Amino acid sequence: MGREFIHDDFLLGTDAARELYHGHAASMPIIDYHNHLSPKQVAKDYRAENISQLWLGGDHYKWRAMRAAGIDERYITGDAPDWEKFAKWAETVPQTMRNPLYHWTALELKRYFGIDTLLKPETAREVYDRCNALLQGEPDRFSARGLLRGMNVEAICTTDDPADSLEYHLTYARTRKEGDPAMLPAWRPDRVVAAEDVAAWNTYIDRLAGAAGSEIATFADLLDALRRRQRFFAEAGCRVSDHGLDTFYGEDFTDSELETLFATLRSGRSLSGAERAVFKSGMLYHLAVMNCELGWVQQFHIGPLRNNRTRLMQDYGPDAGCDSLDDKPVAQAMGRFLDRLDREGLLARTIVYNLNPKDGEVMAAMAGNFNDGSVPGKMQYGAAWWFSDHLNGMERQVNILSDYGLLSRFVGMLTDSRSFLSFPRHEYFRRLLCDMLGRDLERGLIPLSEMAAVGRMVEDICYGNAKGYFGFGR
Amino acid sequence: MGREFIHDDFLLGTDAARELYHGHAASMPIIDYHNHLSPKQVAKDYRAENISQLWLGGDHYKWRAMRAAGIDERYITGDAPDWEKFAKWAETVPQTMRNPLYHWTALELKRYFGIDTLLKPETAREVYDRCNALLQGEPDRFSARGLLRGMNVEAICTTDDPADSLEYHLTYARTRKEGDPAMLPAWRPDRVVAAEDVAAWNTYIDRLAGAAGSEIATFADLLDALRRRQRFFAEAGCRVSDHGLDTFYGEDFTDSELETLFATLRSGRSLSGAERAVFKSGMLYHLAVMNCELGWVQQFHIGPLRNNRTRLMQDYGPDAGCDSLDDKPVAQAMGRFLDRLDREGLLARTIVYNLNPKDGEVMAAMAGNFNDGSVPGKMQYGAAWWFSDHLNGMERQVNILSDYGLLSRFVGMLTDSRSFLSFPRHEYFRRLLCDMLGRDLERGLIPLSEMAAVGRMVEDICYGNAKGYFGFGR
Amino acid sequence: MGREFIHDDFLLGTDAARELYHGHAASMPIIDYHNHLSPKQVAKDYRAENISQLWLGGDHYKWRAMRAAGIDERYITGDAPDWEKFAKWAETVPQTMRNPLYHWTALELKRYFGIDTLLKPETAREVYDRCNALLQGEPDRFSARGLLRGMNVEAICTTDDPADSLEYHLTYARTRKEGDPAMLPAWRPDRVVAAEDVAAWNTYIDRLAGAAGSEIATFADLLDALRRRQRFFAEAGCRVSDHGLDTFYGEDFTDSELETLFATLRSGRSLSGAERAVFKSGMLYHLAVMNCELGWVQQFHIGPLRNNRTRLMQDYGPDAGCDSLDDKPVAQAMGRFLDRLDREGLLARTIVYNLNPKDGEVMAAMAGNFNDGSVPGKMQYGAAWWFSDHLNGMERQVNILSDYGLLSRFVGMLTDSRSFLSFPRHEYFRRLLCDMLGRDLERGLIPLSEMAAVGRMVEDICYGNAKGYFGFGR
Repeated sequence: MGREFIHDDFLLGTDAARELYHGHAASMPIIDYHNHLSPKQVAKDYRAENISQLWLGGDHYKWRAMRAAGIDERYITGDAPDWEKFAKWAETVPQTMRNPLYHWTALELKRYFGIDTLLKPETAREVYDRCNALLQGEPDRFSARGLLRGMNVEAICTTDDPADSLEYHLTYARTRKEGDPAMLPAWRPDRVVAAEDVAAWNTYIDRLAGAAGSEIATFADLLDALRRRQRFFAEAGCRVSDHGLDTFYGEDFTDSELETLFATLRSGRSLSGAERAVFKSGMLYHLAVMNCELGWVQQFHIGPLRNNRTRLMQDYGPDAGCDSLDDKPVAQAMGRFLDRLDREGLLARTIVYNLNPKDGEVMAAMAGNFNDGSVPGKMQYGAAWWFSDHLNGMERQVNILSDYGLLSRFVGMLTDSRSFLSFPRHEYFRRLLCDMLGRDLERGLIPLSEMAAVGRMVEDICYGNAKGYFGFGR
Repeated sequence: MGREFIHDDFLLGTDAARELYHGHAASMPIIDYHNHLSPKQVAKDYRAENISQLWLGGDHYKWRAMRAAGIDERYITGDAPDWEKFAKWAETVPQTMRNPLYHWTALELKRYFGIDTLLKPETAREVYDRCNALLQGEPDRFSARGLLRGMNVEAICTTDDPADSLEYHLTYARTRKEGDPAMLPAWRPDRVVAAEDVAAWNTYIDRLAGAAGSEIATFADLLDALRRRQRFFAEAGCRVSDHGLDTFYGEDFTDSELETLFATLRSGRSLSGAERAVFKSGMLYHLAVMNCELGWVQQFHIGPLRNNRTRLMQDYGPDAGCDSLDDKPVAQAMGRFLDRLDREGLLARTIVYNLNPKDGEVMAAMAGNFNDGSVPGKMQYGAAWWFSDHLNGMERQVNILSDYGLLSRFVGMLTDSRSFLSFPRHEYFRRLLCDMLGRDLERGLIPLSEMAAVGRMVEDICYGNAKGYFGFGR
Repeated sequence: MGREFIHDDFLLGTDAARELYHGHAASMPIIDYHNHLSPKQVAKDYRAENISQLWLGGDHYKWRAMRAAGIDERYITGDAPDWEKFAKWAETVPQTMRNPLYHWTALELKRYFGIDTLLKPETAREVYDRCNALLQGEPDRFSARGLLRGMNVEAICTTDDPADSLEYHLTYARTRKEGDPAMLPAWRPDRVVAAEDVAAWNTYIDRLAGAAGSEIATFADLLDALRRRQRFFAEAGCRVSDHGLDTFYGEDFTDSELETLFATLRSGRSLSGAERAVFKSGMLYHLAVMNCELGWVQQFHIGPLRNNRTRLMQDYGPDAGCDSLDDKPVAQAMGRFLDRLDREGLLARTIVYNLNPKDGEVMAAMAGNFNDGSVPGKMQYGAAWWFSDHLNGMERQVNILSDYGLLSRFVGMLTDSRSFLSFPRHEYFRRLLCDMLGRDLERGLIPLSEMAAVGRMVEDICYGNAKGYFGFGR
């Protein structure tokens, strides 16, 4: 009692953990190599009118918690006044005890606003007013760029569609000031692969053709347009691709099969399930080849099952908080997909992420098969992500990575977030990592004589490995 | 040493845990909203002749352990004398170290009989005699109702077939005395869904028709009969349904398809696997609609693979101890099943339970998609159950619930048991819950300043949430 | 600091753990009932020229780590000089922190060579020279048999093909000296089942016919040849079979179907996927029947997905370090397979091992269904294996076994290794086991008054249970 919740040693249960965190982790800059921030807001240095807009808008984590607490949708995605939305969120916070939202909330109030007061109905008005006073009183500190600078962010990678003009990345590169983080695009060509909804797919292919300035009448044309767009992304600094999938696709295919399936889709007809798997296998293969050709890092985010609640999807659109976990098998298709690339010498540096915990060991072990000694940590088992981004999930990811591979080569945490206030999740991960290592040192699982080496490993995981692996700025 | 095994602070490793348990959890009444007690035994206030009958009869948990210990079936489900069965169980107990049976055994001897002696071959006769002396000397304390009263049980929900007369529930309601728990039926229409064995299904449908007092010649008749029976159950106080399934079923169907499949079954012909999935999807949908119409809570117990050992099944029948875990996928069918109901505004308050640990996160996250703000905690990720009902399993359930939803809204533990002596499993869960929260408080994951709020949460999880959620007595 | 890494109480965090380990576990002989040691090397009392040959050759665990660390294949399976390979391994070791290799490395240097120095680039030369000086200076201590004697190994079971001549087992049995462990063959008929590659299968069947001295023209001939070979194995002391599978196979079959499928394969034609499942089901059934007829223990190692990286497979062959985890369902086929044997009274003592963690609870619970009281611990949930052989994996296996069955009946650890230096993995497991029990005792989950019983259980798990269960020497 008497001590604030988010104190200097939050999560750090041993002397070794405290030494590792304060002496090594805390000062490392942040490379947030995968998030969903708005390039426009960064470029235009967005300033929110109030804390509700900045903190609650677009945050489906909070929305899910509010719905579970019995809060009416009007206060979530509806038209209630900003203060009332905030009050409803304050009503929900104490109910999130043991959920990561409870910690994120306290960390974000503390780190951005210096507020130690726990958010709850009794404190809601005070916290609301203090946050808003800061937002209005120190606008440069609470603008998009100010918030990133305040967290010591060195670089961010947004998530961008191949048809995107990247106008805000280009503007930002020109207007970026000393101390502002680099903002690089990331190539996310999911809509090219998403052949389920044929009409939407064709609309998208037309849009892509427009962006590429070329016709797309054949599968070869499609690859050509993608290559052109990819070069444009590369010129804008892109060094990383990202692929969101329910599972991997590793069916055999030939170029002529792909042309036929493309023609079918282009004519507006649907593919059978088996045909679609072949099309996706071929499409992903070619996208992966392009990633390798440009020397990019490729990421595979595997396992969501999206838009499960039709009513919410219809009222609000995607990312409203009704996505969850799929449970398809992944091992065989993942193996075949990677092996084909490896056989042809076309396997890029690769990070694989699982959303369903059942896939963690399978994916970490399979990734390890394809390390070929060419690049340290070439194949990465990626950070705990989305539904796994909590202490238990992060600890599981670190343990699987340790047990099935080399933790020391890990490129570390990312926010995956749409919110400018989510960067303390790096701190949250770093504290946990140091706490885990501190426990190991205390139990004698790592010799205390190696403290300096452990410290270097912490620095590498927090910063150095990502710096070397992604090669931003090369 | 010198200290008894089941002492006041059993499982409670921190000051905070002890304060939470003794100050908040211990005195809460028990609402055991899902078990398999015999309504007849409750109504007739069953008195066992000896501890073997009361404790070993019907308990497939103990039987499995005895078989694994190399005990002959004669002493398990066979015709050995009661004392010899008890002696064989006493021989097995020390071999169950680290299994929940080891703790359950000690807890049950302590709470019901005040016995601290560890059961083992050397103490078997003494324990047997002491228990029997109590059974005979204080018959009112050890009758069915006496045992429930002694555990501060406020309400129990049994598990009842739609064709059941509920005569014992009705008798009991009339004869229930001050201090006796409420005993409510729970609606378990699994046999209507079980279309694998066509002959058994038809026999059952005939029985159901008899109970409903109506012919069942069409699928519409079947729904009508079920609705009639359901109203009868509701009049007897039923507020909760329960559905035991290998996995969810979410295929599309039309009413005319269901009529056709019904006719096929009714004519004694089998359905193909695909047809059966459609039939089950439709049947479950209509059962779920009825649950919603009556304002009931619906439970889905997902994942058993039953009667795996044919020899045991033939010798003894079901529930002999040869059921285990299935491993089918659940995500997509679960999503489609719930979404159809939600789209139509017909999704009742719902609790989902997984038997296979691989399904925990999938089911908790999917359930969360369908919270709509109408009822706090509308969608529940249910308690650790059956094979998961041990410290590790309960801790995993609490963690998944915390990480993927709101622990604070949890309706808490249940026994799922056939035994009148199993109610200390509530205590076992409560102690674990308090210990987990105590560890969180000690590690600083929950601020100590929130102790009072944590205490209220404990009370809610142990009692208050269930009280509000199920609405017994409304 | 100042204290060596692998000290007497390594991993032992409580007084109880220390008492259990030093008082009960440490002195138990080792029965390594499943490994991949070379019978030839044991028979010929192999002496390595240097530590690289002894330690790095054939060890795909180390190879995977080196590839992940960015080491060129030349230093792994290539033609680099032995010292350079060792230096590269020393470069990798510090990077394996938190991987079991980090502990294994230190344990093996300590137990075999008395070296406390941590292996890293700065110490590589010193460690290399000290090890080699010992290898050359005390050749009898570092010969194959010397290494086994030094670890108090009482018996080992190698892994042998039915067509194997067992010449080295027979030689060894004649030349074995006082203090040398027993070396028994284990029957591993995987190639009879592997009908995917028809040409390789036929070549193998011809080889088997040669070994059996009989023609194999029908499925009945095949069974006959296998029976003959099995009797030969039994005469050489074999008491245990081993079956490596991606999943279980439990399809229905008739003898005439099996004859037809056999004829198809024998004629060089491939089976369809469905036919292959039937063939495998029948083949496995008959192999299991033979296991029972001879009173052997049968083991099922379930879940690898092998040779995923074609390039490595082509350059080096199998076991190069590109195997990982499959993720097929197992429950239903496992149940049907075991039930058929049980119905016919032909189910041998059985150990099941899962490689994919998702299968642990499923397989442990399913195994438990088939305990019939005939033999204590008849159905075993086997030790953490291969990718699961680390502290977290072993702890999970012990917990699943405890929660779903009887830990007290566990037949304990095995190395599964190709290396003469891997026997400290028994110590590693024993220390962990004692540490887990120590924590339980400290938390009051096991009463301290039962310390003696816990000690006996530890001795049983380390040695006594395996001794009784396998019946070597009978």
